[in-house]
Amino acid sequence: MNKQLLFVKRPQGEADASTWSLVTTPTPEIEEGQFLVKQHYVSLDPAMRGWMNDARSYIAPMEIGSVMRAGSVGEVVASKNPKFKVGQYVAGTGGVQQYAVTDGKGFYPVDPKLAPLPTYIGSLGMPGMTAFFGIQEVGKIKAGDIVVVSGAAGAVGSIVGQIAKIKGCHVVGIAGGADKCKYVVDELGFDACIDYKNEDIKARLKEECPKGLDVYFDNVGGEILDAVLGRLRLHARIVICGAISQYNNKEAVKGPSNYLSLLVNRASMTGIVVFDWADRYKEGAEQLGIWMAQGKIKSREDIYEGIENFPQTYNRLFSGDKMGKLVLKVIEE
Amino acid sequence: MNKQLLFVKRPQGEADASTWSLVTTPTPEIEEGQFLVKQHYVSLDPAMRGWMNDARSYIAPMEIGSVMRAGSVGEVVASKNPKFKVGQYVAGTGGVQQYAVTDGKGFYPVDPKLAPLPTYIGSLGMPGMTAFFGIQEVGKIKAGDIVVVSGAAGAVGSIVGQIAKIKGCHVVGIAGGADKCKYVVDELGFDACIDYKNEDIKARLKEECPKGLDVYFDNVGGEILDAVLGRLRLHARIVICGAISQYNNKEAVKGPSNYLSLLVNRASMTGIVVFDWADRYKEGAEQLGIWMAQGKIKSREDIYEGIENFPQTYNRLFSGDKMGKLVLKVIEE
Repeated sequence: MNKQLLFVKRPQGEADASTWSLVTTPTPEIEEGQFLVKQHYVSLDPAMRGWMNDARSYIAPMEIGSVMRAGSVGEVVASKNPKFKVGQYVAGTGGVQQYAVTDGKGFYPVDPKLAPLPTYIGSLGMPGMTAFFGIQEVGKIKAGDIVVVSGAAGAVGSIVGQIAKIKGCHVVGIAGGADKCKYVVDELGFDACIDYKNEDIKARLKEECPKGLDVYFDNVGGEILDAVLGRLRLHARIVICGAISQYNNKEAVKGPSNYLSLLVNRASMTGIVVFDWADRYKEGAEQLGIWMAQGKIKSREDIYEGIENFPQTYNRLFSGDKMGKLVLKVIEE
Repeated sequence: MNKQLLFVKRPQGEADASTWSLVTTPTPEIEEGQFLVKQHYVSLDPAMRGWMNDARSYIAPMEIGSVMRAGSVGEVVASKNPKFKVGQYVAGTGGVQQYAVTDGKGFYPVDPKLAPLPTYIGSLGMPGMTAFFGIQEVGKIKAGDIVVVSGAAGAVGSIVGQIAKIKGCHVVGIAGGADKCKYVVDELGFDACIDYKNEDIKARLKEECPKGLDVYFDNVGGEILDAVLGRLRLHARIVICGAISQYNNKEAVKGPSNYLSLLVNRASMTGIVVFDWADRYKEGAEQLGIWMAQGKIKSREDIYEGIENFPQTYNRLFSGDKMGKLVLKVIEE
């Protein structure tokens, strides 16, 4: 049997238990060209909240009644597709369910001997690719840059900051809570971390970036974005990766009041979507893999168990009650 | 004697008569290396409002008691500077006064036989340079692009749109009132113009840009910026040149609520300041001069008279009660 989490109601504001429905269906049969993935882990990402809205975006909105969209990693347990063999491990967008049938579109092989499976939906998956290409291709970091990263303890931000350190930048993280900040500095090697839940962001930014900053990688939007805009240096680059502070708004998004700092400083603000670098994921994963093997990049997953616990696990994305990449184990052993 | 307009009080919100004080002082003596300009025209620009604020910006704030900062054009009537000869015409930042003493910094010769003097503080001056470099270097327009320009009847916007037409773009202006829109389409050759004072901007943008837009040159900010953000195409470029709708705010600037459209569309928003192209003004002025001679670019100045009328003339920038580049004749003949 296959436990599946269906998306059954578009939320207004925060998603809650009524957003999804857990159903049990027969494990599906596969047709010619398809294969069956026994999913071990699914990825939980802030972007999920956007997929729930019935609005034009970089990807089609989820349809009511469909399996909750999610990145996933697991094992091929049946195959009528010559490119994917039984026993092979694969990652893709299998959704929140225990078994996924696919024709292989968007799936690619992964090697559990090289890295633990959850890493393939974290630092070596979409979050890692987002960080790798976003901070380099759009942030255009170079040695000596002052780089600020919000969501610094999170799946994307933690990698962004570590790459910036490798590239010779001075890196300041922003995260929620003393524990996360300690992790960001002590474990990930950022130069400093601002605790937005307990510190005055503006004052601390001034302290940590007395000469301003060159690059800001934004995962959160809202007041933090405004505070950072107030400290841009000439020709600064802001990478807009997300805006988690705004995703559950029932009212309009808070636009950045300080956006005219872009004019004063001839700075730019550019949005990114990881799919644009799909043809270079291999390059990104290889380089990240090398850095991980060298100990230059640390990857941390926060793993919860049980598909039935998806809703409360999902909430951790927004409460911040997690450390590193949020992952749910959906396999039952 | 020299009539000078002094900046005497920083305004909260709109500037008014109390912001300035008209004084009459002896025509100044010049020292070695200096020359005296008898100023014919001064330029009135929305940027002036920003210069009045005591805030870090792309240029130092004006000091209380100083001559009101302004671009100007006039004739050299005395000189102890070998580079500038009596009888020569020059443009620079001479301020709102009838006679300016300068060591020549920022002044350059202009030829009244090639173009009328006011044009040198308009289409061939800073507004023209802003348009020329902003839309090409940052807007990166190319043939076939859908280009939207706010402040389309104004000093900068009118040139932006005409350059975009020359470059083979489809150009939609946004201006206030039917007269301006008629001028923008019939005289300047834009493909369409939206009257933001009398039309539904969102609906009209959808009508004029059914497939979205590639480049937006923004002079106004506020709700128009938000409406345009809602219609970006993939990889669209927004050039932030100004935000006249926000300059007189007593409250915080209205940030663009729709800024996450940058993410969805992998689009960018970049601020510009004309000074960055100072070493290329000659190139810009020459090309604009050629296009004007060919009749491909039309320049229009709205000229008022009398230094004592500066405050009410300045107000026309914000009420919109003007057509083309706003200029004040300060010479008395």
